[in-house]
Amino acid sequence: MKLIVAIVQDQDAPSLIEDLTEKEFRITKLSSTGGFLKAGNTTLLIGIEDEQLDEVIKIIENNCKTREITTSLLTVTMPGDTYIPYPLEVKVGGATLFILEVEKHIRI
Amino acid sequence: MKLIVAIVQDQDAPSLIEDLTEKEFRITKLSSTGGFLKAGNTTLLIGIEDEQLDEVIKIIENNCKTREITTSLLTVTMPGDTYIPYPLEVKVGGATLFILEVEKHIRI
Amino acid sequence: MKLIVAIVQDQDAPSLIEDLTEKEFRITKLSSTGGFLKAGNTTLLIGIEDEQLDEVIKIIENNCKTREITTSLLTVTMPGDTYIPYPLEVKVGGATLFILEVEKHIRI
Ligand code: NI
Ligand code: NI
Ligand code: NI
Repeated sequence: MKLIVAIVQDQDAPSLIEDLTEKEFRITKLSSTGGFLKAGNTTLLIGIEDEQLDEVIKIIENNCKTREITTSLLTVTMPGDTYIPYPLEVKVGGATLFILEVEKHIRI
Repeated sequence: MKLIVAIVQDQDAPSLIEDLTEKEFRITKLSSTGGFLKAGNTTLLIGIEDEQLDEVIKIIENNCKTREITTSLLTVTMPGDTYIPYPLEVKVGGATLFILEVEKHIRI
Repeated sequence: MKLIVAIVQDQDAPSLIEDLTEKEFRITKLSSTGGFLKAGNTTLLIGIEDEQLDEVIKIIENNCKTREITTSLLTVTMPGDTYIPYPLEVKVGGATLFILEVEKHIRI
């Protein structure tokens, strides 16, 4: 058995949790901040059988892979106080997984 | 040395923490939500010597074992708008433990 | 690769996180309460290469080592309702580290 400690971006967490839960993976969501990823992040504990690892990694990739999005949050000030929204490509997503061997798993 | 990652129901956490602390086990309580157990849950990190495992498991069983309780939250609507509280057996409790081998333990 | 689960005092966390981040260690801060240390505490997950362990331990020691501080929070009541602030030496700091072997580390 393995325990996956997965650190994902906050914005990717809800769809990832939904997909993992649909496949009956059982997860615990820890409150976490900062660090491994630049934006706000969520730490998930996912307990899996050894042979489920590839399936879980694929689900995490589907939901969290690094991708470019175009945002227009940046505005450029023009003379006469007009603000032009400036399209900006930013990278979002990404995940860091630590896979730990579980010596013993007990359900009470 | 072992690190136990114990996911227990919120309602069982205070008495469990009290019993573990009485026996001088040292625990850290992480904020966590959902997942392994259906109700709100709490994740505890418990650092133990190898030979303390059975004792800790017994303390967790005493506080967290699955049990039926009778609740009357469910009400049945009867003609004439009378609500009859309906006794309902629900299962509460339960815990999931992941026991990890600690390669090195350092106190600073 | 190792995953360090470091439980440190809340008051030591900001300077520790700053020093670790400066050295490009990547950390996740979990919300945690009570237990291993008497005061409020913070749990950090720090992923490192095996050969970085000594460096990280030294950074944690620099920021978290147990030390005596003099506080005057305690007051002694004297006759006539005068309160005398009483200098008190208290121990602060300290950290508990669990070092876990990471079987596999994946970045997505
Ligand atoms: Ni295994
Ligand atoms: Ni051991
Ligand atoms: Ni290693």
